[in-house]
This record gives sequence, C-alpha cells and structure tokens, in this order.
Amino acid sequence: MHELRELVEVRFDYAVSFTEGVFQCENPLLRSTLIKEEKGRRHRAWAVIDRGVMDAWPDLDRALTSYFEAYPADLEQIAPPLVVEGGEAVKNDEATFRHILRRVHELRIDRHSYILAIGGGAVLDVVGYAAAVAHRGVRLVRFPTTVLGQADSGVGVKNGINAFGKKNFLGTFAPPFGVLCDVDFLRTLSARDRIAGMSEAIKVALVRDATFFAWLRAHAGALGQGDARAVAELVQRSAALHLRHIATSGDPFEMGSARPLDFGHWAAHKLESLTSHRLRHGEAVAIGMAIDTLYSARAGLCSPALADAVLGLLDHIGFRSWDDALDLRGPDGRPCILEGLAEFREHLGGELTVTLLRGPGDGIEVHEMLESGILAALDVLRARAHGRRSLRPASIPVAAP
Amino acid sequence: MHELRELVEVRFDYAVSFTEGVFQCENPLLRSTLIKEEKGRRHRAWAVIDRGVMDAWPDLDRALTSYFEAYPADLEQIAPPLVVEGGEAVKNDEATFRHILRRVHELRIDRHSYILAIGGGAVLDVVGYAAAVAHRGVRLVRFPTTVLGQADSGVGVKNGINAFGKKNFLGTFAPPFGVLCDVDFLRTLSARDRIAGMSEAIKVALVRDATFFAWLRAHAGALGQGDARAVAELVQRSAALHLRHIATSGDPFEMGSARPLDFGHWAAHKLESLTSHRLRHGEAVAIGMAIDTLYSARAGLCSPALADAVLGLLDHIGFRSWDDALDLRGPDGRPCILEGLAEFREHLGGELTVTLLRGPGDGIEVHEMLESGILAALDVLRARAHGRRSLRPASIPVAAP
Repeated sequence: MHELRELVEVRFDYAVSFTEGVFQCENPLLRSTLIKEEKGRRHRAWAVIDRGVMDAWPDLDRALTSYFEAYPADLEQIAPPLVVEGGEAVKNDEATFRHILRRVHELRIDRHSYILAIGGGAVLDVVGYAAAVAHRGVRLVRFPTTVLGQADSGVGVKNGINAFGKKNFLGTFAPPFGVLCDVDFLRTLSARDRIAGMSEAIKVALVRDATFFAWLRAHAGALGQGDARAVAELVQRSAALHLRHIATSGDPFEMGSARPLDFGHWAAHKLESLTSHRLRHGEAVAIGMAIDTLYSARAGLCSPALADAVLGLLDHIGFRSWDDALDLRGPDGRPCILEGLAEFREHLGGELTVTLLRGPGDGIEVHEMLESGILAALDVLRARAHGRRSLRPASIPVAAP
Repeated sequence: MHELRELVEVRFDYAVSFTEGVFQCENPLLRSTLIKEEKGRRHRAWAVIDRGVMDAWPDLDRALTSYFEAYPADLEQIAPPLVVEGGEAVKNDEATFRHILRRVHELRIDRHSYILAIGGGAVLDVVGYAAAVAHRGVRLVRFPTTVLGQADSGVGVKNGINAFGKKNFLGTFAPPFGVLCDVDFLRTLSARDRIAGMSEAIKVALVRDATFFAWLRAHAGALGQGDARAVAELVQRSAALHLRHIATSGDPFEMGSARPLDFGHWAAHKLESLTSHRLRHGEAVAIGMAIDTLYSARAGLCSPALADAVLGLLDHIGFRSWDDALDLRGPDGRPCILEGLAEFREHLGGELTVTLLRGPGDGIEVHEMLESGILAALDVLRARAHGRRSLRPASIPVAAP
C-alpha cells in the first residue's frame, strides 16, 4: 500500500464595503471592485435584481446602465438586468435557479465575468448558488439590500435553495468576489423587515461582543424607530463580527459539528417551518434567542439579569418573543418545537452542538439540552406574552394552532 | 465609506491511497479512512457503483456489504448500493444526479455521513457533484476504477455534469474526503480504456517531470501490453504529480486564467465534441499533445528530437496521433479544430493561456498560438497517419466527414 497525502489550501481574499449611492457614477466603488484583479481589460457583468428592490427603487436598472456607460473602457453590461421575485418562495422551486443558468450559457458568461446580485437574502442565495455551480464558479458580487443581508447572510460564504421540503438542501460554500452594501437601501424597508434583520446582530453581540451588546441596549429605541445612523452602525458592526468569525474560526466551510454563531437557531429553523414561513427568519431567531437565553439562565450558565436584559432588548426594538406555534403538539402530545433539536443535529451532521450563553459576549457550546429546561423557558415566554397581550393586541396576526 | 477586509483560508487535508483488495475485510484502509475524524462513533455510508464495474466484478456489492458487516461497531451501510450507468452519457442529463440527491434526502445522509463513489471518471464526476451540493457538501470517498481516474481525474478537486451542450457546465471544486485506488480494478479494463487513460500521465510527465517521461519511454512496450506492475507505477507517479500540483500551484480552485496541466487540452476538448465523444478523452488528449508538441518544436521552443520522442512514445503505447475529424471544416472553410482555442479561452475565462513545451518536464505558458503553426502541425500528423495507414488499417473506426 502506498499513500499520497497533501494539504490543499485555498485562499479567498474579499472585501465587504459599506457605501451610499453605489450606482451613482461618481462613486468609484463598483468600478474599482470589478477591475481589481485585471486592470486594463474590459469586464463583463450582468445583474439580477430582486423585484422588491426594483419596486422601491424604480430607477435602479437605469442607474446601473448609466454607471456602466460611464466607464466604457473598463466595464460592459452584457445584457439588461433580470428581475426576479424576492422572498423565500424564490428558493422553493428551481425555476429561477435554472433561468439564471440558462442566461449564463446564452450570454457566454465565463469564470472571469461577473454576476451582480442585488436584493434580499433569498435572492442572494439563489443567484449565489447558480453563480457557484455555473462553470464551477462565476465571479459573484453581492449587493445585500436588507438589514439581515448587510448584517449577516449577504457578507458570508453560503448560498442555497430549498429541496425536498428542506431549507438550503442544495447549495455550496462559495466566498463572493466582493460585497457592496449600500445603506440607502435600508431606508425603504418596511419596519417589519428592518426590525427582523436586527436579530442576527443581537445574536452575534451576545455570543461574541459584550461592548456591542451594550451599544445595542443603549440604542434600542433609535433602532426600533429605524434611525438611519443607528441602523447603519448596527449592520457594519454585525458584518464585521460575522466576517471575522468566518476568517478566524478555522472552519469557514463548516466541516466540523459546531456552528458557534447559530445561537438560538435550532428553535428558529423549526419555528420557520412550523409557521410555514409566516415568521421571518429574524423574527424566529429572536424567539430562539429568548428560549436559549432563558434556558442558559435556568441552567446556571448565565445570570437571570442577562436573560432580563435580552428579553428587554428584544421588546424595546420591537420583537415578539413568543409565537403560538410554540404550543403546537405532535400526535404523541409532545411540543413540535422540541423536534428542532434533532433536525438541527441532522442538518449539521455529527454530534449535537448548541451554543448557549455564559455572559454577554460569551457563548459556550453544549451537546445536550434538557427537555424540562426548554419547557420551562417556554412557560416563561408564554406567560410574558399573555400578560402583555392583555394590555395591547398583537400587531402581527397569529395563526393559532 | 467603510471597508472590511478578511482573508478566508480553507484547508483540505486528504490522502490518495493505492491498495489491492480494498473491499476484503482484512484490508484496514476503508475502515481507517472512514473513522479517521471521529473515532468511537458509528459512521454511516452509502455507495454508488458504476455498472461497468459491477459487470466486471459481479461480487462487488456483496464484498462491500461483508466489509461493513465485519466492523459493525464503526461502520453502517445505510442502504444497498445504487448502480448507475457509466460513461459520458451519465453526465448528459440530470436524471442520475437528481436520483442521488433524492436518496441523500430519503436516507437522511448528513454532512458527516459518507457517499462512496466507485467507478470511472464520469460516475465519479456526477456522484461528486451531487455530494458537493447536497447539504452544501456530504463527505465523498472516491474509488476510481480506471487508469484515467487513478492517474488524474479521480484524485483531484473537480466534479461536474454537462448542460446546454457544454462539458462540465455545472460543477464545483470540492476536495474529496479521501481517495482509495484499488489497482486490481485496472486488470479488467479493456485495452482501449487502459491505454486511453495513460495520456494524462504522459502529459504531466511532459510538463513537469523529465525523469518520469524517460521512465514512460523505457516502459512503453510493457504499458502498451497492460503489464500490471508498469500500469500501477504509471498511475501512482501520475497521481502524485497531479496532487502535488493541486497542493502547490497556489490556485487549486483555478481562479486565475492559467491551467498549466491542460497541455494539449484545447484541441482535445474540441476533438471530443467534433467526434461526439467517439474519441475517449484520453485519446483526444494524445492527439492534442501531438499537435502542441509539434507546434512547440516548429516555434523553436523545444527540439525536433523531443517531438519525435513524444510521437514515438504515443505510437509505442498504442495511441493514434491523428483523427480525420481534424480535417472537418466549417461553412467558412476553416478547420473546425481551430475554434477550440477560443472555446478553451471562454471555458477558463480571462486571457487565453496555453501550455507549450520547452523540453521534457518543462512546460511554458503562452497567450497566443498562430494558425499557421497549428496547420503545419496538422499537416505532419496527417502525413504520418496516411503513411502508416497504407501499411496497417485503422483499428479504431473513423467516421469520415
């Protein structure tokens, strides 16, 4: 027997830039991003735009075309943008994915051409997956247009679509060529989307950065009201922490069992599916964090004061930390939410690994969660919600079980 | 404007092992490969087998099952193997790809479970692509069963299927978990397949390793006759050079324009398509190397003696260095083969980069090839073939234009 062994190292050097007016001709960022690898040749690019973004910014495609026309020696827009539906539905069938692939073929987009993906997380996911597998990888420049996209998902290395009823069953790890975050886009979000996107920032503060958590508490009112400066600072600080994690965790493609930044996510994934995505991902994560923080306090890992602070912050920004789907029960009478733990383990592969809290900015991994502790956390959240509900009615419709 | 910049490094540590009797229970290699990351737990695995391999080794699935049954504490075969058609056709529609994905879903294969891919290059490509995108990457252990697979494609980091009439239009770069090469499989190959697979070994010797090239010349007769020891040494030396290139080139995922190991491949890809895959990939590469070696000599890059040595080695092993498809002409009267250069450039993206020869083991990159030089090389090969053909008839049927 004879063995050859090699260590294959792959380096991805990419920047996440925050700017305003990204498609205004005098803003050099897009041009400098596209020409950074090979100066002196003309770079071909094609854009895919989220319909929700086009609706809010109806001049967007004209601005993009004008931008390319302003730099004819460097840039070429090879075809009009493709406008696709946004939201989770775009990931549920393969029509959009396939349409993008067909255009890559027809437009002769090669591995050194660019696809520009402009939109919310779902559109970035489907465009990113198509770009990752066409020719084994076409250059992708992401323009996340939501708080969630700029704070977390749009700056990372994942893409995907849903299949067989499983979220992100198909996808790859594929670092983008670049990420350009235009904070202007955040101004036209609905309050619901803007708030929902903040939960990943709260999450990364809780497990990584006590100072950021303190800042979030100090600015909860401004954040809840959509103050532009506060929201811009939130997305930048959150993006920096997420990107730093990817670069320094030692496992950017998640080959191990741990996902230290998936605090609150085992319950969140299950809640999204139990509510058929009536809850936004961020809304579900807020509830998942509430559960896991209360669990951490009850398990003696963190103080009850931290749990109060987390629940208070969620309230203050405008999250709900309860949804009646938490009370759904299976044929055996068990709360369905508990299945989320097993499904989370299966999704990661290997051993169950869940992040809990020891303190603000201090996550800790555990490999078991006790059902009794989870049920106790749910009792606290249910009681809080019912207490509050008698004072003010739910602003988000609840589909009772 | 604010910029976050991080270097994301991903490390893949994988071994390519050469062995015999890989599914005999007393051979520890497969077990030790599957348990290497997490000892002490039971590892789930599912196999996909090339029908051509099953035909030659009808006891293979029973041997695999016996192997798993011999190590019940460590290994679990979660379902009977799936047998799929081999050859390029399996990459031409998505049926096999989709069937594998569906089984991954049904069998609850997770990111820490294994898919074992046993077969020729086409089967490894389609199974590898499915494994790479399911759950963003399930562990893949490859068992290449051909000379080409063990010497080159099966030890590398690529997978793919064909789409829109383009070879490998869809695929990813995804290092396998491990590669187990059982040289026993090479014994049951047809002479045609065994010989065709040797061209990538000749290629990597020519551009990287003069000593290996001298060894090939010294053993050409034994290789042509399928001497098992000589063939085993060829695949191991070739695999080591290919793997070393992936690990040390600085661009394992081919983000630049250069493909230093694609010597002879611009013409080869075009010939495969011009002959609708009547020519095997390896047969086309042999012809492509003959063209580019003659071109290199004519351009004064290497000596005429090296060109003679290369053509002589190809003859001696049993390759043909001419195919009448080289004379096919388009509507404009130009030889179709010349389109191969533009298509090669498009496939890589960026600037045209072709490797030529300065000496044995000494490739050099150029960014232009003159039509006149290519036509002159074709004239030499045509004349040689017609001279020889009058002595002995073609053993491979030629579909004349």
